[in-house]
Amino acid sequence: MRIGVCYYPEHWDRRLWNDDARRMADIGIEVVRIGEFAWSKIEPSAGAYEWGWFDDAVKTLTDAGLELIIGTPTATPPKWLIDKYPDVLPWDREGRPRSFGSRRHYCFSSPTYLEESKRIVTAIAQRYGAHDGVIGWQTDNEYGCHDTVRSYSPMARTAFRRWLKARYGDIDSLNAAWGAVFWSQIYDAFDAVDLPNLTVTEPNPSHVLDFYRFSSHQVAAYNKMQAACIRAAAPGRDIYHNFMGFFTDFDHFDVAKDIDVAGWDSYPLGFLDIGPFTDKNKLRFLRQGHPDFAGFHHDLYRSCGNGRLAVLEQQPGPVNWANHNPAPLPGMVRLWTHEALAHGAELLCYFRWRQAPFAQEQMHAGLMRPDNAPAVGHAEASAAVSEITKLAKADSISVENNNAPRIAIVFSYETQWMSEIQPQGGAWDYLRIAFEWYSVARRSGLNIDIVRPGMSLNSYALVLIPSVFHISPDMVAALNDATAPVVFGPRSGSKAETMTIPDGLAPGPLRAFLPVTVSHSESLPARHVERGEFDGETVHGGVWLDHIESTLSPVARRDDGAGLLFRDQQFWLFSTCPDDHFLWLLIKKILSDCGVSTSDLPDGLRIRTNDRCGYAFNYENAETTLSPTCAPTGATFQLGATVLAPAGVACWTDTENSQTKPARKTK
Amino acid sequence: MRIGVCYYPEHWDRRLWNDDARRMADIGIEVVRIGEFAWSKIEPSAGAYEWGWFDDAVKTLTDAGLELIIGTPTATPPKWLIDKYPDVLPWDREGRPRSFGSRRHYCFSSPTYLEESKRIVTAIAQRYGAHDGVIGWQTDNEYGCHDTVRSYSPMARTAFRRWLKARYGDIDSLNAAWGAVFWSQIYDAFDAVDLPNLTVTEPNPSHVLDFYRFSSHQVAAYNKMQAACIRAAAPGRDIYHNFMGFFTDFDHFDVAKDIDVAGWDSYPLGFLDIGPFTDKNKLRFLRQGHPDFAGFHHDLYRSCGNGRLAVLEQQPGPVNWANHNPAPLPGMVRLWTHEALAHGAELLCYFRWRQAPFAQEQMHAGLMRPDNAPAVGHAEASAAVSEITKLAKADSISVENNNAPRIAIVFSYETQWMSEIQPQGGAWDYLRIAFEWYSVARRSGLNIDIVRPGMSLNSYALVLIPSVFHISPDMVAALNDATAPVVFGPRSGSKAETMTIPDGLAPGPLRAFLPVTVSHSESLPARHVERGEFDGETVHGGVWLDHIESTLSPVARRDDGAGLLFRDQQFWLFSTCPDDHFLWLLIKKILSDCGVSTSDLPDGLRIRTNDRCGYAFNYENAETTLSPTCAPTGATFQLGATVLAPAGVACWTDTENSQTKPARKTK
Amino acid sequence: MRIGVCYYPEHWDRRLWNDDARRMADIGIEVVRIGEFAWSKIEPSAGAYEWGWFDDAVKTLTDAGLELIIGTPTATPPKWLIDKYPDVLPWDREGRPRSFGSRRHYCFSSPTYLEESKRIVTAIAQRYGAHDGVIGWQTDNEYGCHDTVRSYSPMARTAFRRWLKARYGDIDSLNAAWGAVFWSQIYDAFDAVDLPNLTVTEPNPSHVLDFYRFSSHQVAAYNKMQAACIRAAAPGRDIYHNFMGFFTDFDHFDVAKDIDVAGWDSYPLGFLDIGPFTDKNKLRFLRQGHPDFAGFHHDLYRSCGNGRLAVLEQQPGPVNWANHNPAPLPGMVRLWTHEALAHGAELLCYFRWRQAPFAQEQMHAGLMRPDNAPAVGHAEASAAVSEITKLAKADSISVENNNAPRIAIVFSYETQWMSEIQPQGGAWDYLRIAFEWYSVARRSGLNIDIVRPGMSLNSYALVLIPSVFHISPDMVAALNDATAPVVFGPRSGSKAETMTIPDGLAPGPLRAFLPVTVSHSESLPARHVERGEFDGETVHGGVWLDHIESTLSPVARRDDGAGLLFRDQQFWLFSTCPDDHFLWLLIKKILSDCGVSTSDLPDGLRIRTNDRCGYAFNYENAETTLSPTCAPTGATFQLGATVLAPAGVACWTDTENSQTKPARKTK
Repeated sequence: MRIGVCYYPEHWDRRLWNDDARRMADIGIEVVRIGEFAWSKIEPSAGAYEWGWFDDAVKTLTDAGLELIIGTPTATPPKWLIDKYPDVLPWDREGRPRSFGSRRHYCFSSPTYLEESKRIVTAIAQRYGAHDGVIGWQTDNEYGCHDTVRSYSPMARTAFRRWLKARYGDIDSLNAAWGAVFWSQIYDAFDAVDLPNLTVTEPNPSHVLDFYRFSSHQVAAYNKMQAACIRAAAPGRDIYHNFMGFFTDFDHFDVAKDIDVAGWDSYPLGFLDIGPFTDKNKLRFLRQGHPDFAGFHHDLYRSCGNGRLAVLEQQPGPVNWANHNPAPLPGMVRLWTHEALAHGAELLCYFRWRQAPFAQEQMHAGLMRPDNAPAVGHAEASAAVSEITKLAKADSISVENNNAPRIAIVFSYETQWMSEIQPQGGAWDYLRIAFEWYSVARRSGLNIDIVRPGMSLNSYALVLIPSVFHISPDMVAALNDATAPVVFGPRSGSKAETMTIPDGLAPGPLRAFLPVTVSHSESLPARHVERGEFDGETVHGGVWLDHIESTLSPVARRDDGAGLLFRDQQFWLFSTCPDDHFLWLLIKKILSDCGVSTSDLPDGLRIRTNDRCGYAFNYENAETTLSPTCAPTGATFQLGATVLAPAGVACWTDTENSQTKPARKTK
Repeated sequence: MRIGVCYYPEHWDRRLWNDDARRMADIGIEVVRIGEFAWSKIEPSAGAYEWGWFDDAVKTLTDAGLELIIGTPTATPPKWLIDKYPDVLPWDREGRPRSFGSRRHYCFSSPTYLEESKRIVTAIAQRYGAHDGVIGWQTDNEYGCHDTVRSYSPMARTAFRRWLKARYGDIDSLNAAWGAVFWSQIYDAFDAVDLPNLTVTEPNPSHVLDFYRFSSHQVAAYNKMQAACIRAAAPGRDIYHNFMGFFTDFDHFDVAKDIDVAGWDSYPLGFLDIGPFTDKNKLRFLRQGHPDFAGFHHDLYRSCGNGRLAVLEQQPGPVNWANHNPAPLPGMVRLWTHEALAHGAELLCYFRWRQAPFAQEQMHAGLMRPDNAPAVGHAEASAAVSEITKLAKADSISVENNNAPRIAIVFSYETQWMSEIQPQGGAWDYLRIAFEWYSVARRSGLNIDIVRPGMSLNSYALVLIPSVFHISPDMVAALNDATAPVVFGPRSGSKAETMTIPDGLAPGPLRAFLPVTVSHSESLPARHVERGEFDGETVHGGVWLDHIESTLSPVARRDDGAGLLFRDQQFWLFSTCPDDHFLWLLIKKILSDCGVSTSDLPDGLRIRTNDRCGYAFNYENAETTLSPTCAPTGATFQLGATVLAPAGVACWTDTENSQTKPARKTK
Repeated sequence: MRIGVCYYPEHWDRRLWNDDARRMADIGIEVVRIGEFAWSKIEPSAGAYEWGWFDDAVKTLTDAGLELIIGTPTATPPKWLIDKYPDVLPWDREGRPRSFGSRRHYCFSSPTYLEESKRIVTAIAQRYGAHDGVIGWQTDNEYGCHDTVRSYSPMARTAFRRWLKARYGDIDSLNAAWGAVFWSQIYDAFDAVDLPNLTVTEPNPSHVLDFYRFSSHQVAAYNKMQAACIRAAAPGRDIYHNFMGFFTDFDHFDVAKDIDVAGWDSYPLGFLDIGPFTDKNKLRFLRQGHPDFAGFHHDLYRSCGNGRLAVLEQQPGPVNWANHNPAPLPGMVRLWTHEALAHGAELLCYFRWRQAPFAQEQMHAGLMRPDNAPAVGHAEASAAVSEITKLAKADSISVENNNAPRIAIVFSYETQWMSEIQPQGGAWDYLRIAFEWYSVARRSGLNIDIVRPGMSLNSYALVLIPSVFHISPDMVAALNDATAPVVFGPRSGSKAETMTIPDGLAPGPLRAFLPVTVSHSESLPARHVERGEFDGETVHGGVWLDHIESTLSPVARRDDGAGLLFRDQQFWLFSTCPDDHFLWLLIKKILSDCGVSTSDLPDGLRIRTNDRCGYAFNYENAETTLSPTCAPTGATFQLGATVLAPAGVACWTDTENSQTKPARKTK
C-alpha cells in the first residue's frame, strides 16, 4: 500500500510549496492528491484559464519525486458560472433552487452543467494527461454529499420523463408497472409525470423508486462522461472516485463501473458521532470510532472496485463536521492506516497535509498544523509508513492462502431505497441492519466481502443476506450456483422489481430455495421483543416479523409455535431481525457444522488477514489479549504481540506453515 | 348490523370479479362499498366518460345479491384535470401549492373544483341513482385527511374574506371582535384581511379561530353540495361519509347534518401507534389497540349521525401507515366487529376485500391476500358474521331497557381549535383530556354518549364536560334543563365566542351554575403535580390550575387551601386536570350518591349494552373474568362466558328479567 | 428607583382612563409607558393623523401627576402601509417574505421603511417632545424579537453588499479575509456576494459572521436614526430601549450607544421555561424563575447603559408565551422589584396595567384583571412601592463603599455569533456557559458587572472570561492594565477578527499573558466527562478540551498529565469547561488568596449590595437563613430578617460602620 496526502497548493503562499513537498517525501509519502476544488483559480472568469500556478505546483511536487492524482474541480463551479447559468443549480425537495455559497451546487441533470463539466475536465486532462508524474485522476469529489443526488429541478423533471420513456416505452406500461390506477393516478403521457415531491401525502412508491433509480443513473452517467474525457486525454492512468461513509443515495456498484479504483473517505470518529450507533457505543468508542466502521467500507468498496481499493481521505485528527469532534486516541491514526492495508487498500491518502486556518474546514486537522508545525497525526502517519515499508520489504511473509474461508454479505442499494421509500416500520433501518450483521460476522475472525446482489457466491464458506427485497434473475442464478450455507434475513424477496408485491407473495423467487410463503408481516416498535427458542437457548428478535406458511418445521420458534428461523438444506431464513446473540449463535453453528473454526472475538478486537499477514486491531480503551484462535501459536509477530494496548496493532506471519513467498509490491 | 366490504374492481383483472362477488356473498357479506377513487377510470380524459367497466362491476356485484354503496371519486381528481385547472390545488401553510401525486389534492375553496365536483358527482349519481342495488352513497373520502381542511390558497383567501363579510357585516365589527387594535392590526376593509399564515409571530387568535371556522364551513358546504347532487339523482338512498379517528379539523356535527349515516374508519392498531397514548400502553396494547379507541369514536359519531352509525372501513390485519404496523392479536378482528354492533353500528365494512399488491397501500391487509388466498382476517370476519346473524335471529333476547343509566360526555370541536390556537400550556391537549375522561368513565360499565355542546342532557345519569371553552346560549339552556349531576373540567367557560376573555372572567355563563370567578390560571409542565385531599384521600392533578374566588368552600383542596374541586348542588367544577384516580373517585361517588350501581372494571375489560344484549370485550393480553356487576348473575351467555381469553368476546341476555322482545333487524 | 407601568389607552373605553390614572397614582406609580403599538390608531390611513385621542390620553395621565415615556410605534406598521409598500416586509431564512398579521414585520434594510419610520417618529416627537409630562422616549419595541434581526430580503442583500464594500474596499481583500479560495468561492465583485442562506451545505463562516455583524449594525443604525429624530424634537429627554432576555442577535453594547438608559423586559418565569436550564431546575424554580435570571440581565444591561438601567416591563403574574405559564409564588413580584433596585435600576415598569381580554396576549396578566379588579400582582407591587419609598426616605443608610470588591465577567456578542456559526461541538453553548459562570460567581456574594471585551478591568477583584474568541487590541490593552486575577475559559483567543485561526494558533494574543499554544481542540458530548485533580480534589470538566503545549506545568491535570487548568502569575486558563464545583473551587481559592472574604451561598439565596443597602433574596421554595458572611453581624434590617421565607427579601444597613450619608434620590 502506498501512502499519499491531500494538498491544496492554491490555499498557501507558494513560498511554502517546496518545503511542503520535501517534508512529504521525507516521511515516505509517495502520492499527492490535488486540484479538486480549484476551478475558480484555474478559470477565474469564463474561458480565461490561468494554468501557470497549477503548472508550477505540479512541477514542484513531481520534482520532489511525488506522484499526483488530480481531481477534477467540478464539485465547486465558480460564482461567475452560476451567475451566467443559473440553470446549473440543483433544486431541493421543497421546490427551491439551492444557492451558491458552499459546494456541490449543481444539478446532475443540467445539460448546461454537463457541457461545462466536459469543457473543464477535458481542459485539465489535456494539459496534464500525458505528464509522467500524474498517475491518476479523481472524478469530482464525494458525489452526493449534502443530499445532492436527488435534484427536484425542472431540468431533472425533463430528464426523468425521458428516462421513464426509455424504460417503459409507452405510458400504459408505466401505469401498469406503478399500479397507477390506485388513487386515480393514471397518466396519459410521460410529460404528465412530475417529480415526486410536495405531494399531499406519500407519492406512489414505484414512482419514487424510479426517481431514485433515475437519480442514481444520472450520477453514473455524469461520472461516465468525466471518465471518458479523462481516458481520452490521459490514457493508461487510473481513475478514482472518493465515495463516502454510510452513503447510499446512488448505487456505488454502478458508478464504480467506470472507474478503476474505488476510493473512499474514512472518518471513523465523525461517523461514530453521526452514525446509527447506540449512545453507549458512542461514549465507549468516542476516540476510536466504531471497530467495524472502516472495515465495513473497505470490504464494500473493495468489492465495488473489483478488488482495487483506496482510501483517498484518511482522518488524521479531529474533524469539523460532526456534532462532536474529539481527537483520536493516540495510536488510532496508525491503526487505521494498517487496517486499510489489511483490508486490501493499495493507496491511503491522509486528508490533508496542512490544516487550513480559514473557511468551513478550519477546524479539520491535517498532518501539519496551521502554524506549519507537525500535528499529532504526523508522527503516527510517519511511523505507519515506516512499518508498512519494512513489512513490504520482508521476503518470507506468508500467512494465508487464498482458500481460507471467507464470508460474503450481500448488500443491495435498491433495498435501501425501498426501505427509505416505504419503511413500513419505523425501527427498520436496512443499512443499520446490514452493518450489524457485518459486525456480528466479524466476531468469527474470518475475512468478509460485501458483495452486490447477483455476484457469484461460489468462493464463500458462508453467505449472509441481511435482506434483499427484490431478488433479480442473476441473484437467483448465483443462489443456484452457491454451495455454501446462505442465511436470509426478513423481508427477503418481498418486492418485485417495480416495488410491488411479487406474484405468489414474499419471498418471491426465494420459494425455489425454501418452501415458504409469507402470509403477512408485522413491523414492531424497537422496544418490543419477540422471544423464542433455538438450539436449546432463549433467543430474541424484533423490528420485523414475517408470518410464514411452510411445510418446514421452524428451527427457532416462539412459545406459540410461530417460526423465527427456517431451514431447508443449505438455506436459512429468519422471519424476524435477530439480535446480535441470536445471529451469532447461528453463524457459529453453521460454520462449526461446516468444520470452519472461528474465533469468538471480544468486543473491541478485530482480526483481518491479507495475502501476506494476519492483523489484529484493538479498538478497546483497555488492553486486550489475542487468543490462540486469532494468531496461530507459532506465529511470528512482525508488529506488536499477543497483548495489545489501546489502539494497538499486531501483525504476524504464520512461520510454521510458511512457504517462501516473494514480497509483492502492494500497489 | 349488516356486514360489508370495500372493493376496487378497477384494481383487478375483471376475470376475478365474479369469483370475488361469490366469495363475498359466501361469508355473509351483504354490502359492497365501491368507486371512491375511480375518477381517472370513469373519465380518462376531460368529458370522455367510460361507464362500461363500472356498469359491468355494478352488475356483477348486484347479480350476486350484494348491495352497493358508491363513493363519489372526488378525493382523487385525475392528472388531466389538475393540468387543465391548476387552481384546483390546495396550498400549504408554507405558501406553496401542494402537488398532484397522491390524493386529496384539491382546495375546498376552489370555484373550479366545486364545478368539476358537481359535474362528476351528478354524472355518477344520475347513472346509478335509480339502480335498485345501489342502496347508499358516500360523499368523497375521509374529508380532511393529510391536513387538507385548511388551504392557504388565493381562492381560500377570497372565500375567507367573503365569509368574514357575511359574518361581521362591516369591518369595524371585525376589528372590535378580534381586538385588532392590539399590535396595530386594524383593517380598513375585508379585502385587507389575509390568511393567518407566514406571520412573523403568532397571528391574532380570533383571526385564526375564524379561519378554522371558515375552513370547517367550507368542508360542510362542499359536502352539502355533493349531498344535494346525490339526493337529486338518487332519491331515498342513504348518504354516508367516512370520518376518521382522532380528527378534529372540522366540526363533524356540522358536516354530518347533510348526511344520513355517520360512518367512520376504524383502525385501532394504527391509531394506537400514532395516538396520544403512553409508551407503556403502546407496548401493552400493541396488537389490540387501546380499549377505548373504537368505543370513543362509535359513541361520538353515533351522536353525529343522530343515532345512525356505520363503520365504513374496519382494520382487518396490519395496516401500512403507522410508524409500526403489527398484526392484530388473533381474535381482534372478530372483537372489533362485535364491538361495533354493541355500540350501535348498523353497518360494518372491512377495508378491503383484497390487499392490493401495488402502490401506496400495498402493505395494507385485506380479507384476501394479494395471491387471492384468504388472509387471517377472513376467517375472523366470517365467524363474526355467522355469530351476528345467529344473534339477530334469536327471538327472546332482552337485557336492557332504554332507561338504563347513561353518561354523557360533552365534546366541543371549537374548544379543540381554541386549544390548538392558543394552548397557553404545552401539556394541555384537549382531545387527549376528553379521551381520558371517556376512558375513566368507562370503568363504570355504563353506556356513554359523546354529545355536542348544546345538546339536551336530560336523559343522562351523569354529565361530564372535560372542558368547553365557549359556553353558548343553547348550552346554557341545556344546563338549565339538566337534572343530572354535571362535572366541569378546568378552563370551562374561559372564552367568549370570539375567543376573547368573557365579561366578568371565566367561567363566563357558568357563573349561573356555580358562584365562582377564575382570578387567574396557570399552565404547568407535565412533570409537575398538584397534590390535594378529597374525601379523605390524597388526590393529584396537574397540567392546568384555575385560581378560583368563590363563596363555596372547595371539596378538594391543596395543603395551602387552594381549591381543586368545587361543588354547588348538582354542579361540580375542577380547577385542575384530575388524574385518572381523582376523576374516578368523583365519578364513583356521584353515581353512588345517585344510587346508580357501577362496575369498577379492570383495565383491559370493556362493557357495553345495546338494546338486545350485554357485551364484554377483553383487550388484555391475558385472561380476565367478569365480575357479577358486569353480567347479571342469571345472564344467559349467547357468546363466550364469564372467563374471557385475550381478545375474547362475551355476549349475554338477562333471562331473569327478559320480556319476549321481537328480533329487530339490525340495519 | 421609580415605579412605572405600561398602559395602552387605545385598548380601553376612554371612560376608564381617568379612573385608571387615579388608581395608578394611588399606589405610588409615577411613570407610565405608552404608545408603542398605536400606529394604526394614530395614523389610520396614509398621512391622515388622528392625534385627538392620544392628546387626551396624555392629558388624562399627566393631569393625574403621572410622567410619561412614549414608545415609537414602529414595531407595528399598519396594514395600509404594508399593502402600499410590500418592500417593507422582512424575508425569512427560507427565502420568503414574512407576512403581516402579528408584529415586527419590517426589514431593517428597507429604505422605504427607514423613510416611513423617520416620518412617524418625527411626527410623534414633534407633537409631544416639548410636553413637560413626557420625560422619556422608547425607541421601537424589543428589537429583534421573533427572529427579526436577520432579514434575507433583496433590500438586505443590497445593503449587505454596500456594507461589505465599505468594510473591505476591494473584493480581493474580502476574498483574502474570508479564505474564499476554499471550495472555489472567489468573488469578482461585491455585487456577486449573496446572503448566506439556502446554500447546499454550510456557507463560509466569515461570510456568515459578516452578515451577522451587518445585521447587528443595521439595528444600531436604525436605532440611531430614531434617536436622532427624537433628540431633535424632544431635547433633554431620556431615550430608552427595552432589550430582551437571553437575546444576542445584535450587539447590545453597540445599540445602547445611542440611548441614555438601557431598559429590558424581565420575565423570570417565561424564561425559566424556555431557557437553557436543567429539567430539575425548571421544576424547582417553577414559580420563582432561575435565581440568576434577573441578576444576569440587570448586571449586563446596566453595563450597556453605562450605569443607567431600567426594567421597562416586569412580569406581574402568569405570562402567555412560554410553553408553560405558571403563576409567580406569592411574594415574587415584590422580590423581583426589590432585586431590580438592588442591582441599580432607576425605573421599573410593570407590564401591564390591565390584562387585555383580547388578541395574542389575552392570557398575559396585568396589575389589574380584565374585569378591572386588582390582580394578584397589584398588592405586591403596591407593597414594594411603599417599602421602596420608605427606604429611599431613610437618611442614615449606608452599607457599602464603592471600594467593595467586585467581579467582572466579560461577555462578547461576537463570540456568541461565532459559536452559533461554527459551534464545532453540539454541547458548546456560549451564552449558557457565560450564564453558568455568572451563577457560580454569585455564590461568592460579591457584586458582579458583566462587561464588554475591551472595557477597563481595573476596578475589579477578579475578572472571569468564560470565553472570548477574538481578542481585540483594546482587550489586550485592558488585560495589560488589569491588576486583578483573570480567569479564561477554553477557546479564548481561538479566532482572528475574520473568524479564521489566528497566526501562531490559539490563544492568539493571549500568548502575551500565558506561554501556551493550543495544539488542537476536542469537542465532547455532554455525557462525556474529563476527570482531573486540582488542589488535592477531584475535579471534572467537559464539552471542550484544548490540548495545550506550554512551558507551564498545569495546575489541574488528568491522570495522563493533560492539563485542565494553567496559571501564569495573575492569569489562569482552563482548557476545558469546568463544572460548577471546579469553577467554584478556583474562584474561592483566588479570592481567598487575594484576601477577599466570600460567602458560599446556598443554592436559592442571592445577595446584592447597592450603595445604600445590602439585600438578600430567597428564590428557594423553603425557608433559608442568612449566614454571618452575608449580612454583617451588626446589620440593621430595614426589611426582613436573617430568616427568609420563600420569596422573602431582606434589606439591611451596616450600622456599625455607617457614616451618615444623605439619602440619594434613586432616579
